[in-house]
Amino acid sequence: MKALVLFSGGLDSTVCLAKAVKEYGADEVLALSVYYGQKHKKELEASEKIAAYYGVKRLELDLGEIFKESTCSLLEGSPEEIPHGDYAEQLVGKDGAPVSTYVPFRNGLFISSAAAVAISHGCSEVYYGIHADDAAGNAYPDTSSLFNKAISDAVYIGSGNAVKVVAPFVEAGKEKVVEEGIRLGVPFKLTWSCYEGEEKACGRCGTCLDRKKAFAMNGIKDPIEYMHDA
Amino acid sequence: MKALVLFSGGLDSTVCLAKAVKEYGADEVLALSVYYGQKHKKELEASEKIAAYYGVKRLELDLGEIFKESTCSLLEGSPEEIPHGDYAEQLVGKDGAPVSTYVPFRNGLFISSAAAVAISHGCSEVYYGIHADDAAGNAYPDTSSLFNKAISDAVYIGSGNAVKVVAPFVEAGKEKVVEEGIRLGVPFKLTWSCYEGEEKACGRCGTCLDRKKAFAMNGIKDPIEYMHDA
Repeated sequence: MKALVLFSGGLDSTVCLAKAVKEYGADEVLALSVYYGQKHKKELEASEKIAAYYGVKRLELDLGEIFKESTCSLLEGSPEEIPHGDYAEQLVGKDGAPVSTYVPFRNGLFISSAAAVAISHGCSEVYYGIHADDAAGNAYPDTSSLFNKAISDAVYIGSGNAVKVVAPFVEAGKEKVVEEGIRLGVPFKLTWSCYEGEEKACGRCGTCLDRKKAFAMNGIKDPIEYMHDA
Repeated sequence: MKALVLFSGGLDSTVCLAKAVKEYGADEVLALSVYYGQKHKKELEASEKIAAYYGVKRLELDLGEIFKESTCSLLEGSPEEIPHGDYAEQLVGKDGAPVSTYVPFRNGLFISSAAAVAISHGCSEVYYGIHADDAAGNAYPDTSSLFNKAISDAVYIGSGNAVKVVAPFVEAGKEKVVEEGIRLGVPFKLTWSCYEGEEKACGRCGTCLDRKKAFAMNGIKDPIEYMHDA
């Protein structure tokens, strides 16, 4: 195969998947989803449906053990509640520390896992969907362009120049991800971004707020339903 | 805790462990060992004994799933035999590709896993025992100083400046690792380096040859027994 896509079933990684499929065709694309101890399986269920929609092979890794001592609010067993409000609000008073939904070095771990799997499957590219809004204010330090440069170098050098990391949206805001998704005809309705695991997306966690804003900036309504649509 | 040491139970990582224990004391050091699908458990058994010797807490991760499609000759189910002879011989005719005992992006994956675990345990340093002999000729591309620089930057940036990677021997030959081990009184007899999983070390795989040479350069005999001592 040609490209491996780190694929959560969220909006950003779905647009990455669509880009890779357009570039190489579904038969040359491998989707890699990861269970890491998150409180719900809605994303993973979404990733299965979307992989089937595109007709790409999908693998799922279980890396939950690595995070079992973490207190990140996204994880099962964490004493912390998932916060409401946007990332800028959540960063107030944090003194440069990441938000409570930061999963320790998750992107570094996922890209490294993806690189290992990519080599075994002959894939020479690993796509992932980080974008600049997540990096703003260092909310998620493992989504910055500096981080991307370093991990891309590490993967390229450490794989013996066999694997390149592709981060199409690293310099872009989420509205650009939606714009590209519209252009590619992405089935947004199948994606799941919300940090909560209710029947509908909550509409008030950091990622719901960011997502709604990105659709609004493109002048269209997000086709998924929200519990709180303020 | 202060420092996490990536700890295979081999010579290099044992000297790293000894350094971290000397620096911070056993109570501040966490040893992390990884099962990744290797053909034998001799190293992991050694790592348990050595962790007990030093009185450090030891965790073991199972990342075997990530490598299950790899044909690396160190892995269970691989059709390839572990080669005899030193790395320089093994690289002949490989056109810049790594040796057959290169596990795909293993060090990148292990350091990323270690960074994630380190953050959860409050460790601000991750030690690992790469050295320049393994990087020579690009036998193991994930042991070079360029790789180390990139992955160290990725960990530091991606952890929100919380974790530094420490690679004490990245510029040194294995003889320096042994020299430091002698100085620190490392129980070399408890370590296991050989790629084969027989009762005694084989004495003719790449790592056995490298190890014997490193002891010889220090003017002492390796205290472990070898099946082939040519």
